[in-house]
Amino acid sequence: MLIREATDEDWPAIWRFFREIVTAGETFTYPLDLGEDEARSWWLLVHPNRTVVAVGADGTILGTAKMNNNHMGNGSHIASASYMVDPRYSGRGVGRALCTHTLDWARASGFRAMQFNAVVETNIHAVRLYRSLGFEILGTLPEGFKHPVHGFVGLHNMYCRL
Amino acid sequence: MLIREATDEDWPAIWRFFREIVTAGETFTYPLDLGEDEARSWWLLVHPNRTVVAVGADGTILGTAKMNNNHMGNGSHIASASYMVDPRYSGRGVGRALCTHTLDWARASGFRAMQFNAVVETNIHAVRLYRSLGFEILGTLPEGFKHPVHGFVGLHNMYCRL
Repeated sequence: MLIREATDEDWPAIWRFFREIVTAGETFTYPLDLGEDEARSWWLLVHPNRTVVAVGADGTILGTAKMNNNHMGNGSHIASASYMVDPRYSGRGVGRALCTHTLDWARASGFRAMQFNAVVETNIHAVRLYRSLGFEILGTLPEGFKHPVHGFVGLHNMYCRL
Repeated sequence: MLIREATDEDWPAIWRFFREIVTAGETFTYPLDLGEDEARSWWLLVHPNRTVVAVGADGTILGTAKMNNNHMGNGSHIASASYMVDPRYSGRGVGRALCTHTLDWARASGFRAMQFNAVVETNIHAVRLYRSLGFEILGTLPEGFKHPVHGFVGLHNMYCRL
């Protein structure tokens, strides 16, 4: 698996699973009917922020990550990141590779911590992955997310010192 | 003290203390050199979000608040708000009146909680005010803010059930 910069040419392949994940409404606090143009502008970030794709041996895009500052001004030493893995390629370490990549980027860019603002508590694979990479739960917003199956569930605020 | 919708005509009066507060860099995670046009577009929100001013008996603008959703999609039942009080009119209950107003707005608008993402822990007047109105600290990002006097201090994530 290779991780490289995302390009405009990658977008159609990203959008295929991005749309599926957002429409399911189980893991992201994005509008479920998010339009493609808006999605692209939210996801494909420009320098100094960054977006990458994880690519399989045959060139297939398996997943993607964006990384950016989480606060501005006197909080601009705190990074954040988001990940989407094509559900057809889950369980192959794509999420772990992407998350590790963003932590390395944040460290190399001089950030002091990585923070996630809204991790849905029922997204247990993600929570377990983040914990295994050194993230802690700072706090959980009770009933912060209306899950389509489980109803109101908590939203974790997680962070990892770099 | 009257609290009413902010208008474009109020902006120059708001900008006078807004700029002072942001430039001081002690309480907001905004760029310290934030330009006026960007500041106005960040602060003067449009429906369904909202911005108000607190006005004294002689028409002087004493402070301002903006209120909005804090998350989107399946998190859109969580509100947020920000406040600025002209330092020349501090200690007169302006912040309390503005905060109460935003909680009332959020409740009336159907939000289920109000959440603040980045309350600087050394901003003890604000933290005390929020606590007195029912907010709890969900968690604190260690060293999340570089205070110009105190160095790295925590950033509280606070919330109040409505």
